[in-house]
Parts: sequence; C-alpha cells; structure tokens
Amino acid sequence: MFAPVGTQASVKAVTPAQLHELGASLVLANTYHLYLRPGEKLVAEMGGLHRFMSWPNPILTDSGGYQVFSLAASRKIDEDGVIFKSHIDGSMHRFTPEKSIAIQENLGADIIMAFDECPPPHDKEYNLRALERTHAWAERCLKAKSRPDQALFGIVQGGIFTDLRRRSANGLVSLDLPGYAIGGLSVGETKEEMHLVLDELDPILPEDRPRYLMGVGTPVDIVNGVLRGVDIFDCVLPTRLARHNAVLTRTGRLNLVNAAYADDPSPVDEQCSCYTCTNFSRAYLRHLIVAKEMLAATLLSIHNLHTLLQLVVEIRQAILETRFDELAGRFIEQQESHNG
Amino acid sequence: MFAPVGTQASVKAVTPAQLHELGASLVLANTYHLYLRPGEKLVAEMGGLHRFMSWPNPILTDSGGYQVFSLAASRKIDEDGVIFKSHIDGSMHRFTPEKSIAIQENLGADIIMAFDECPPPHDKEYNLRALERTHAWAERCLKAKSRPDQALFGIVQGGIFTDLRRRSANGLVSLDLPGYAIGGLSVGETKEEMHLVLDELDPILPEDRPRYLMGVGTPVDIVNGVLRGVDIFDCVLPTRLARHNAVLTRTGRLNLVNAAYADDPSPVDEQCSCYTCTNFSRAYLRHLIVAKEMLAATLLSIHNLHTLLQLVVEIRQAILETRFDELAGRFIEQQESHNG
Repeated sequence: MFAPVGTQASVKAVTPAQLHELGASLVLANTYHLYLRPGEKLVAEMGGLHRFMSWPNPILTDSGGYQVFSLAASRKIDEDGVIFKSHIDGSMHRFTPEKSIAIQENLGADIIMAFDECPPPHDKEYNLRALERTHAWAERCLKAKSRPDQALFGIVQGGIFTDLRRRSANGLVSLDLPGYAIGGLSVGETKEEMHLVLDELDPILPEDRPRYLMGVGTPVDIVNGVLRGVDIFDCVLPTRLARHNAVLTRTGRLNLVNAAYADDPSPVDEQCSCYTCTNFSRAYLRHLIVAKEMLAATLLSIHNLHTLLQLVVEIRQAILETRFDELAGRFIEQQESHNG
Repeated sequence: MFAPVGTQASVKAVTPAQLHELGASLVLANTYHLYLRPGEKLVAEMGGLHRFMSWPNPILTDSGGYQVFSLAASRKIDEDGVIFKSHIDGSMHRFTPEKSIAIQENLGADIIMAFDECPPPHDKEYNLRALERTHAWAERCLKAKSRPDQALFGIVQGGIFTDLRRRSANGLVSLDLPGYAIGGLSVGETKEEMHLVLDELDPILPEDRPRYLMGVGTPVDIVNGVLRGVDIFDCVLPTRLARHNAVLTRTGRLNLVNAAYADDPSPVDEQCSCYTCTNFSRAYLRHLIVAKEMLAATLLSIHNLHTLLQLVVEIRQAILETRFDELAGRFIEQQESHNG
C-alpha cells in the first residue's frame, strides 16, 4: 500500500475525489502541522479529520516526533518529552507521549503512531539512547490511548545499526501492537544500509501485523521494501516532484520544463493510463508550467501519484500470483540498466 | 450560457474533467495570450486548441483586440492594425484583422471574433473613430476567414452612446454574421449606462443569432443581460475571486479568510449542490487558505463556477417555462434588499 501525504489535511494540488479516483486508500496527515494549524481541537469540533478533509477512507497520523526534530525552530528533549518552537510563529510548545496520543485522538485517524525520537542514522550512542526513550514512550502511548477504534503502531528506531534495530524491534514486539513502523530510514543512509536494516527486521517483526516503512519512497525503494517484507509506504515525493515540474516514470524522472518537450505531442508515459497521460501532451504540460498555471501541479501530481499507486497494485497482484520475485528482479534490473 | 475563461488554454485551478462535471459547455481562450505563449503555430501542430487543452466541447477565442489595448506594454494603432509590445518579454508584434483571423484559424476554436478596437466608454469622438475602424476590420476579417468550421462573430462598439451603438450594430448586422458580441461594457460605465446600451441593441440585433456580452459577469449582471436579450456571457470573475479567497453567493460574496469562518462547520452555501459545498466546511476552506494549500483555489473555483453555470441553467429553464421575468424580478429584488 502506498499512502499519499496530506501534511495539512490536504494532499497538495488534488481533491479527495481525484485521490479516490486514483485508487488511493490510506492517506497520511501530520500531527505536528495540524496541532499548530488549525489545531486538533478545531478538527475534533468539525467532526474529526475524516469529515474535515472529506476523506472517508483510512487515515494515518504520525506522532509529531519526526517533525519536531526536523522542522521546529529549536527543541529541548528530556525523558518526559520535547519542548519546541513552532516553525510558523515561534511560539513554544511541549509534546509528550501522552500529548501526542491526545492530539491524535482528537484528530481521529484510523492508525496512530507512538511518539518517537528520530536521531541521525550514523550516531550509535545517540541512537541507543533514542531507541530506549522511544520504547519507554511507546509504553506510555499504549497506556495513554483510550479510543478503541484507533490502531497504535510502534516505531522501530536504531539508525543503521542492525543490533540496535533488533533491540528496538524486539522491545516493541513485546508490546503486541497491531502494526509496526520502521522509522529513521531514507534520512541520509545508503541504499545498502537501508536494505541491511530491513533484512535484519524481516524475521523479527510478526508476519501477521502490517509493517510500515515511513517516508519511503521511490518506485525502486518500494520494490526493494516489499522484497524485505514491508506492507505500507508513504512519501511526499509524488506531489513534491510535481510542484517542481518533475514526473516519475518507472525507471527515472523527466523535468517537463526542459525546452525539448515544448513541441512534444506524446504523453508523459505512453504506457500510463492516468488522466494526465490519457488527455495531455508533454507540450501542453510544459506550456502550463511556463505560463505558471496551477493546473500543472495538479496534472503532474495526478500522474506521479498514479505511478506509485499503480505500482503497488501490480506488486499486490504479483504477490497473489506468486511471481513477485520475478517482477522485482526485472524492475531492479531495468532500473540499474537505466542508471548505468 | 456562461463561458468560463481559460486565458492561457487552462481555466485556472480546475481540470477539464472538473469543468465538464460542472456542466460547462463553451470555454473562452485568449488569442493575445496564446499567440505570445506557446504560439498559435505550436497549438496547431499539437492538433488545435481542443486537443491541446483536452476540451472537446465548444471553444471561443477572442480577437486579441481587447488585450492589446488593455495588457500590452505599449501600442500604436493605425487603419491597418496595431503594433504592440509584449507584456511578457517586451518584444514587438503586429496584429491586423487578417493576422487575428490567421491566429484564430490556427488555434481552431468553434467561435472566433472579429478584430476590434475597444476605447474608453465615455470618449465619444474616440468611440466614433473606433467603431468605424472596427466595422472596416470586421469586413476584412470576414474576407480573410477561410475555415468553414468556424463561426465569426462581429463586435458592437460605441461606448455608452446609444446612437453610436446603433450605428455599429446596424453596420455589423448588414454583414449577416452568425453571431454578434457586445464589447466595451463592464469597463468603467455605470450599470444604468450598460442597461441603456443593451436596451438600445435588443431590437437591432437579429433574434435568430446568438448575442454575446463580453466580459460580464456577476450573477445580477447575467440576469439583467438576459432580460435585455443576451445569450452568452464570459467572465474571469469566478476563478479570479477564488484565487482571492472569495466565494460568490446569489446575493453577494464572502471572503473566507475572515476569522469568523475559522470554526464554521457549514458549507459556503447551504442551498448549493456543488462538490465543494457538499463535501467541505467553511472552516476547512479557511484552513486551506491560511495554510496556503493550492486546493483552496480549486475548491473555491469549483463553487464559483457552479454558481454561475447553475444560474444560467435555471434561467434557461425559466425561459422555456415562460417564467423568466418572474425569476428575474425576484432575483433583482433580493439583490437590492441585500445591498440596501
């Protein structure tokens, strides 16, 4: 499953109707952003996130942990939680595991995340401290949680260190959670390091619980993740690339602002069945970009989202037909021959 | 009929699929803009405007005249045509009636407009000269026109002066054109002046040809136009207001950025059946605006376009049921009681 990201309760540049038509099921929204604006209490008053953003299908909220560490203007962390400065107006706020759960209960997503600390991937000592803290916080989150209609996932930390990852995963598995996320990847480590961590975790995480690789990814990262047991992915990539005039193909990217596309009557991808590719030429899309028409971001987002959502549909079908290894092998080979 | 405006071959912030769902039929595109970017020859190479922008339904292109006079950085006019400076890159260009038709034939719209001069509405001497020139240019356009699948409309000029309007209309009617546009209104004159001109033209323009009031309007302008025999309207208002956070209602406007809407769970308009009003609260729309989400412009455009497109559907139905005068009377009364 690939989850488009609706950071501020909107998947950028597309309507929920378009998302639904694209076959999206799970959508992610960010606790940190929605807490700051418009505020989780307002969202609760408006009937919760599903009604607020008009997405009756599954929603996942993250814990706010990652954003506090990556976006907040400054932060101070202790065993109890984190004090941070809003990136919007500089105001001071405090997140604790209990606060993160209270916010996520007000938002009302179907899947909520335990509050975690996400350190730089190569600092072993920090990662050890962070995973111990993340484990203690996961226990507090589980205790604080009161809504029976929300599934709490724990987040495995430990950077690139397989021994730390094992330790983190074993601790969380002992809490018997309904799902497990793998955090702290796709944040500066190599592909090989990411794959080693996923390989290490594959036999530890229970087979009957969904595994969610946070913030990943590209088509090839998704294929490599599924090969290593991952079920759920989310990433801003498809919509962010679209706002930078870039389109995903199975084997790479095109930047449509290039003059080469000015008179190109072909669609972004001849094989693609999305609304954008079945209706518009590269020449038209480039014209929209050059003329600064908002429609460009919408049409490029539709194509990019379709590419990833369609990829996971094909992966799912291949798994059911026990030919996923073959699909993955071919896919990775194509990718390598394209890049080399 | 109300025609949404797709200046640069895109009705801003909505997809053709959304436009179609809104019930739009005719869409307007601007000759001046498309000539400058991406160039009408490119559009022709890409299969013409219908295929380029993926709008298989009717399209109207204006003549470029109005934009040359209102947008170009500078211009010089003589009997043969206009030399002007591009507002995009300062390059120099020349439009003549023949050139305007050649561009519009390359663009390939269903309805094309005769090249006209649109002077300030209160300058009688200038308006007299302009309408003589516009008439001579209309004759040249008719002669230059070569595509049998395009309908050439003439444009009545004459500012606020009923004698000049009569003279302009009679001249154009003698050319036996398939449709007539009324130009130079909604450019600074009063409503009373606009209505006087429309009343004057009503008996002159042939009943069996469509009459198109250019650049108008608001809901009440449309009702007043239909009362005076107008069939077709176009206006950037619904999409432009949307990008300024404003929504049209039948009797006025709301600016959704107002803090009063921050916790308002009601839709923009309780009576409205558009996608925006049936799915989203004012609180959510305001959140999108404050959070600078592009979806705001899309959802507000959908509502505003629906409001005008639905209004003309109701007007058409009322005309067929011979109760339009009643509808118009009630509408104008509501409007006045709202404003007063």
